[in-house]
Amino acid sequence: MSAPTLDSGATAAGDPVTAQVHALASAAKTASRRLIGLSTAAKNDVLTAAAAAIEAAQEEILAANATDIARAEADGIEASLLDRLRLTPERVTGIANGLRQVAGLPDPIGEVVAGKTLPNGMTLRQVRVPLGVVGIVYEARPNVTVDAFGIAFKSGNAVLLRGSSSAADSNAALVAVLREVLAAHDIDPNAVALLPAHDRSSVTALIQARGLVDVVIPRGGAGLINAVVANATVPTIETGTGNCHVYVHSAADLDMAEKVVINAKTRRPSVCNTAETVLIDADIADVALPRIVAALQAEGVTIHGDEDGMEPADEQDWSEEYLSLDIAVRRVDDLDDAIEHIGRYGTGHTEAIITSDLAAANEFTKRVDAAAVIVNASTAFTDGEQFGFGAEIGISTQKLHARGPMGLPELTSTKWVVWGDGQIRPV
Amino acid sequence: MSAPTLDSGATAAGDPVTAQVHALASAAKTASRRLIGLSTAAKNDVLTAAAAAIEAAQEEILAANATDIARAEADGIEASLLDRLRLTPERVTGIANGLRQVAGLPDPIGEVVAGKTLPNGMTLRQVRVPLGVVGIVYEARPNVTVDAFGIAFKSGNAVLLRGSSSAADSNAALVAVLREVLAAHDIDPNAVALLPAHDRSSVTALIQARGLVDVVIPRGGAGLINAVVANATVPTIETGTGNCHVYVHSAADLDMAEKVVINAKTRRPSVCNTAETVLIDADIADVALPRIVAALQAEGVTIHGDEDGMEPADEQDWSEEYLSLDIAVRRVDDLDDAIEHIGRYGTGHTEAIITSDLAAANEFTKRVDAAAVIVNASTAFTDGEQFGFGAEIGISTQKLHARGPMGLPELTSTKWVVWGDGQIRPV
Repeated sequence: MSAPTLDSGATAAGDPVTAQVHALASAAKTASRRLIGLSTAAKNDVLTAAAAAIEAAQEEILAANATDIARAEADGIEASLLDRLRLTPERVTGIANGLRQVAGLPDPIGEVVAGKTLPNGMTLRQVRVPLGVVGIVYEARPNVTVDAFGIAFKSGNAVLLRGSSSAADSNAALVAVLREVLAAHDIDPNAVALLPAHDRSSVTALIQARGLVDVVIPRGGAGLINAVVANATVPTIETGTGNCHVYVHSAADLDMAEKVVINAKTRRPSVCNTAETVLIDADIADVALPRIVAALQAEGVTIHGDEDGMEPADEQDWSEEYLSLDIAVRRVDDLDDAIEHIGRYGTGHTEAIITSDLAAANEFTKRVDAAAVIVNASTAFTDGEQFGFGAEIGISTQKLHARGPMGLPELTSTKWVVWGDGQIRPV
Repeated sequence: MSAPTLDSGATAAGDPVTAQVHALASAAKTASRRLIGLSTAAKNDVLTAAAAAIEAAQEEILAANATDIARAEADGIEASLLDRLRLTPERVTGIANGLRQVAGLPDPIGEVVAGKTLPNGMTLRQVRVPLGVVGIVYEARPNVTVDAFGIAFKSGNAVLLRGSSSAADSNAALVAVLREVLAAHDIDPNAVALLPAHDRSSVTALIQARGLVDVVIPRGGAGLINAVVANATVPTIETGTGNCHVYVHSAADLDMAEKVVINAKTRRPSVCNTAETVLIDADIADVALPRIVAALQAEGVTIHGDEDGMEPADEQDWSEEYLSLDIAVRRVDDLDDAIEHIGRYGTGHTEAIITSDLAAANEFTKRVDAAAVIVNASTAFTDGEQFGFGAEIGISTQKLHARGPMGLPELTSTKWVVWGDGQIRPV
């Protein structure tokens, strides 16, 4: 298979963008070594001060955002993207309140995850520590800039932010405020830095900065994530691609099925936990299928499938993450066939079954391989806030390190701290 | 930076080795879907039957090993490698007993790691599940073939083994026994497979088989690990590179320091937890340095450093993982200088301090960034068996997923199982 390429330009260390990224990463590494020593109270003080500073700087932030918006409009960027880019006084307050919320969350650093005393008298403690330097590659919304800083900082990490070029001015204004607050608290401001975003060479430099960057988290569409994964040498956590299914089992309550499918598709069609395919058991399809299709159509959803009156579906439709008011609908033979379909086309994000049959629910939750497997509820619940994490840095769809919504503990690692009194190991 | 390359040959899907690896990976994926349903008792039965089958097949296994040994001798392979490759009746029994030991360990699968009931009545359980298909790339010793199968199988994973070409016949004989035992227990034998090892194209195919392989663990020298990391698109766990330090602090008990340094260097110089550099605090160096150097020299260790009577050290010596009876010795100004040196040259494996000063011990364990930080004991203790894990698949030196020795739980992921009764998410 050929790897998607991030850019065709030079990525040698001599390249000026690469040199700049390395310098910022190196400074972030140095800053990160001091973050581990900060008390929870000191971190919370910074977060609440940063919230106040962002509110105080509302005027400058909105002015910078207006520049981004004007440039985006001149570039003819589509309305939905413009909306995600736009800041308002209410949104600035929301960003500030997000930091206050993170300040209120428990500090994961220092937690003793496991511990024991060995027969030779040595004591072992597995202690939660920061990852170090975390790189975030993201698109569009400027609020991610501050959210990511808040979560990374509370968990003791320095953060390198590679946002979208369309949000360059907004991001610069926000990061300037954050760095001022850090400096005012005698903390190395290099604990947060914005990477240049005019082309993708800064992404390449970031994801190959082994030894300087501990983890990269790409947040965005499948194209961005695949390109990062194919080119990264720094460990990465894949997030967010969601081809989520709702399987309406033969023993489903059809009122519930209709309600859940409508919510899973139409609540916010552009987010990763939206349902993209409905699988309907053949045993009930004659009744269930027309009813669910009609309900979806009444909400303005376009149906892709093999049945009469649908947009004809091809193989691609079963894999498609529409992220729009489109959904694929397919008749499946039985539970096995549904699980098989999900295994083939799913992205391991969120899969739901609607059933009143206990054995079917158990079989589905056991055999379906996904970050979240849901019985009788909407796929829309796969979300850090809904799961009660208080803050979320993304939703991992890979199996290493973290799976599903990632909160503060997911931005940490552990180390073994061993105390002895002169023990040596026999041959 | 330029990426190390694994091979210059074709790695397109049309390439026969790649096609073969994909076919084995696909079969392993299918097999893995059934492993998750096996009870602990069924898995333990297989492991104990496999132990007996390996003992029963001792003659064939030793004959295959003799072929490998003869080929290695004809190729002029060095004595230490020959020793690692060689099987004996005692070593075959040891391999079988390793499987029995894994059978006796707790089964991590199905453990509920976390759980809660949300305000809307939905229940969440975070359940431990297998990773799926695990690829292991390793060198030399044929016992790893069986050890890796045992740990992967007990934790519900299918395993693709890419061993050394020098052990090809031994590995084939061992895997044949394992597959026969699986088939005799009505388990898909594709849960374990040996990949072709005649060139590195099978490694490339394995580490780029996204969607078929869930995780790759390279076990071997720094060259192998760097090449895997640079070329992998499947998530990897880096293992084993250890440039470990012992820092003899100004408040060290010199009897203890000498005993620990000798053990950390000479117990088994070829393993990753061996000490490669001794840092001696300037405050005590006039006494401590000649004493520790003399003790090392008495054990046949060559000293690299800047002092009289040492092999002159250059920058490379501070980074070097000698894995031999060589060690670098350096005078450092103080605790800060020691931590700084370790931060610059260490590989994040194991770092030790010898001190009787509590504040120094605390500062060292807090600030040194490594998988294991040890106070007053030998670096040789960083090992799954020593830590009480019962079995070890390697020692992670990265910060994602697992850090330090990896046992059965480290070969698992989790999934969120959510039960509702029709909940939908408000807008």
